[in-house]
Amino acid sequence: MIPLLYNYKCLLSYKGTNYVGWQKNPFGDTIEERLEKALFQLLKEKISLQAASRTDAGVHAEGQVIQFTTSSSLEDTNGCLSFLNAHLPCDIRLLSLEQVPSHFHPTLDAIGKEYRYAICNAPFQLPFHQDFSWHFPYPLDIDAMKEASQSLLGSHDFSTFCNERPLWTRNPICSLSSILINKQEENRLFISIYGNHFLYKMVRNLVGTLLYVGCKKISKHSIPSILAEQRRPSAGVTAPAHGLTLKTVFYN
Amino acid sequence: MIPLLYNYKCLLSYKGTNYVGWQKNPFGDTIEERLEKALFQLLKEKISLQAASRTDAGVHAEGQVIQFTTSSSLEDTNGCLSFLNAHLPCDIRLLSLEQVPSHFHPTLDAIGKEYRYAICNAPFQLPFHQDFSWHFPYPLDIDAMKEASQSLLGSHDFSTFCNERPLWTRNPICSLSSILINKQEENRLFISIYGNHFLYKMVRNLVGTLLYVGCKKISKHSIPSILAEQRRPSAGVTAPAHGLTLKTVFYN
Repeated sequence: MIPLLYNYKCLLSYKGTNYVGWQKNPFGDTIEERLEKALFQLLKEKISLQAASRTDAGVHAEGQVIQFTTSSSLEDTNGCLSFLNAHLPCDIRLLSLEQVPSHFHPTLDAIGKEYRYAICNAPFQLPFHQDFSWHFPYPLDIDAMKEASQSLLGSHDFSTFCNERPLWTRNPICSLSSILINKQEENRLFISIYGNHFLYKMVRNLVGTLLYVGCKKISKHSIPSILAEQRRPSAGVTAPAHGLTLKTVFYN
Repeated sequence: MIPLLYNYKCLLSYKGTNYVGWQKNPFGDTIEERLEKALFQLLKEKISLQAASRTDAGVHAEGQVIQFTTSSSLEDTNGCLSFLNAHLPCDIRLLSLEQVPSHFHPTLDAIGKEYRYAICNAPFQLPFHQDFSWHFPYPLDIDAMKEASQSLLGSHDFSTFCNERPLWTRNPICSLSSILINKQEENRLFISIYGNHFLYKMVRNLVGTLLYVGCKKISKHSIPSILAEQRRPSAGVTAPAHGLTLKTVFYN
């Protein structure tokens, strides 16, 4: 007899500063491990987690989506949420928990994601933003960045913007539907990128390249040729992890 | 001969989380002490500091104003700023440094201040806001809070809202020109209070009282009688320090 399994979807928010990323690894504390431990306290069974985005060390998430199956039916989801949050460190918070059909998978079913990158564009890094934004003190031509970003929209081979790992093969064609560049407050710049899927470190490489455009290190007209070269060195620097936040994962 | 002294005014921003307040004391690390040490590195003389607001342990500042005199004339103020910031921890940043007339005093010359209090009004404290906002998970009637806040505007004896220290005497008449209560993002509430001067813990006591109005613990019509009683127990709880930020100090 096949045991009955219940499938759950959670919305998760975390500050990535003190973690070596989402995924369990031998190098330090991870969000996945913390969550598995909390779930073990609740369910008394070893839980395997799937996440919509395996965020890197230092990257934050406001709306990470995770999924797990369990042999327990969780009736009082609010009570479970409170229990789990009480067993998690305060820089990780589960925001919701709901039962979903057994075929739901947070990565395979995602139709898109929104990432937001924050930049502190002031002479000195402001204390409030130090954990959440890249300090970039040089003057930025934001109009040039906006113009350049238009060449990234639509479907392209984004190999140029992928820090490929050896033996990694993945479809390099991604489709970006929107890149919004907004100055908020006097010194804070946000770059929000919406796309159907993203390659390894792609958002941070896009941001680094757009900032190179902003400070005139590369021309605002050079994006099409950088895309066409399909060589990582053609693009700008990889923006540091701590400016990046996974905002939203979209599903049908 | 009286030695020539130069008077300087600085704008200062800090995250108060790791400090026991602005003012030097025997209980731990303070912002004043850190700044004095950095200034000693630069000027090789012991510097005495005056601050517009002696913020409490855990309180943050975006626009604290400080003043000091020195026998050195600082010609390259940008170079000095960079030097000082390099000798300060990254949660304290000097944003500007300028010579001012010898009579300038940051407290006595201030004509007003703006404080902002942040509240995370969600079921769980969001990781991004944990150092900067009070987690208040109960439903809030923001319109009632706005209505109640109107009774606080103008000049009143604010003794009710002062955590008096023994032997402390100070003019209890303060004039509040504006209280703005704004919901930003889904779960974040900001209370901005502008006034000519503030008593000890007054902003936090005002916020605690307005939140008691918001969650119906006290009536929105009770503010005039609470003010009139001039007894601290008549008002609401003292809101915790970490939600409070000194935003701006105003001068003529």
